[in-house]
Amino acid sequence: MTITITCFEHSPDGGKGLARDTRVRWALEEVGQPYEVRGVPFPKLKEAEHLARHPFGQIPVFEEDDLTLFESGAIIFHLADRYGGLLPEDPNARSRAIMWLFAALNSVEPSILDLQNAKFAEGDKPWASERMPLVLERIKQRLKQLSDRLGDNEWLDGEFSAGDLMMVSVLLRLKPSGILGGFPTLTAYVERGEARPAYQRAFKAQQAFNAASAPA
Amino acid sequence: MTITITCFEHSPDGGKGLARDTRVRWALEEVGQPYEVRGVPFPKLKEAEHLARHPFGQIPVFEEDDLTLFESGAIIFHLADRYGGLLPEDPNARSRAIMWLFAALNSVEPSILDLQNAKFAEGDKPWASERMPLVLERIKQRLKQLSDRLGDNEWLDGEFSAGDLMMVSVLLRLKPSGILGGFPTLTAYVERGEARPAYQRAFKAQQAFNAASAPA
Repeated sequence: MTITITCFEHSPDGGKGLARDTRVRWALEEVGQPYEVRGVPFPKLKEAEHLARHPFGQIPVFEEDDLTLFESGAIIFHLADRYGGLLPEDPNARSRAIMWLFAALNSVEPSILDLQNAKFAEGDKPWASERMPLVLERIKQRLKQLSDRLGDNEWLDGEFSAGDLMMVSVLLRLKPSGILGGFPTLTAYVERGEARPAYQRAFKAQQAFNAASAPA
Repeated sequence: MTITITCFEHSPDGGKGLARDTRVRWALEEVGQPYEVRGVPFPKLKEAEHLARHPFGQIPVFEEDDLTLFESGAIIFHLADRYGGLLPEDPNARSRAIMWLFAALNSVEPSILDLQNAKFAEGDKPWASERMPLVLERIKQRLKQLSDRLGDNEWLDGEFSAGDLMMVSVLLRLKPSGILGGFPTLTAYVERGEARPAYQRAFKAQQAFNAASAPA
């Protein structure tokens, strides 16, 4: 059985670990599965070969024998479900860990992606600077609620789970913005995630991949 | 064992089935589980009692004995996982159905929610009309990709699954906009979903709930 993940040949962040393959690499390290990596150059993302693997022309893609998956949430759930170690055994605790996996992607990440859209896709539009405070306010409102729920706990619900892996990954995308600094509870939570050996290995692997594939 | 779901006391759509409790009701009907309904008035969404159930102050919430879940994706996954009928038995097919559940929420719904934000939260802003074409274009691009992948298939991957239930629910939110009309493949797909007896029962139940709780 061979696992292959597809990521950007050159990540737009140059190896800062903010592309979505890092979270999949992290999960693979947590469950202890080796993997191979296929880099896709940007122009090929919207070509037929890649679209057959990922209908929305994005990364990551996960391949394991005859199974092909896209969507980082689905890939991480699959790894947790098949290999264990990222979801509690108790059925209710398991459902709650999966809830946080969805919450990271659906209640927290959208406002963060909106910031990236506002900066990059709409940064040159006439409304860019006037609209920005509203975009930032939506993120802060969500972070406040998340911070309130996390409180003094180490992780979102008992032991570290796939839900924490995804939430930390999503929050890491805010690093360049500095917004996280206003939320010490979440800053410490993200640091606990980054300190995990599996995260460290994943981060270094994507960094090395980007360095090796960097244009001369 | 009693299941209780929490929804808006008065849905902003007045019972058109576009609030997120409808998808949970639909899943409950598909798996054949009875449920009770608690309506929450808008002002109470951000109060402590509701925030204890849902840290982001939204709906739906799902309660089953001592388990409390928020996030419609997590609730529908839980129902599919616990009661069967919405996920294939074959492990790879099951992982792909879960992939579509995530894809509906993460690759399709965000651009649709952005349209709702653009209409309602930013409808009175100076940039509203100038920005709208860009918001609509993002949706159409995603719908085109989804339509290409669905092609002539009845459902996204073999039999009807939790992934289709979520994708149809997400696409239904576009009904008021008329955008779906430009994608006959997706229009027919949504109609197949709406034609399911379980959807019909769920739709009527939320409609009756909204009618019964409507202000005099």
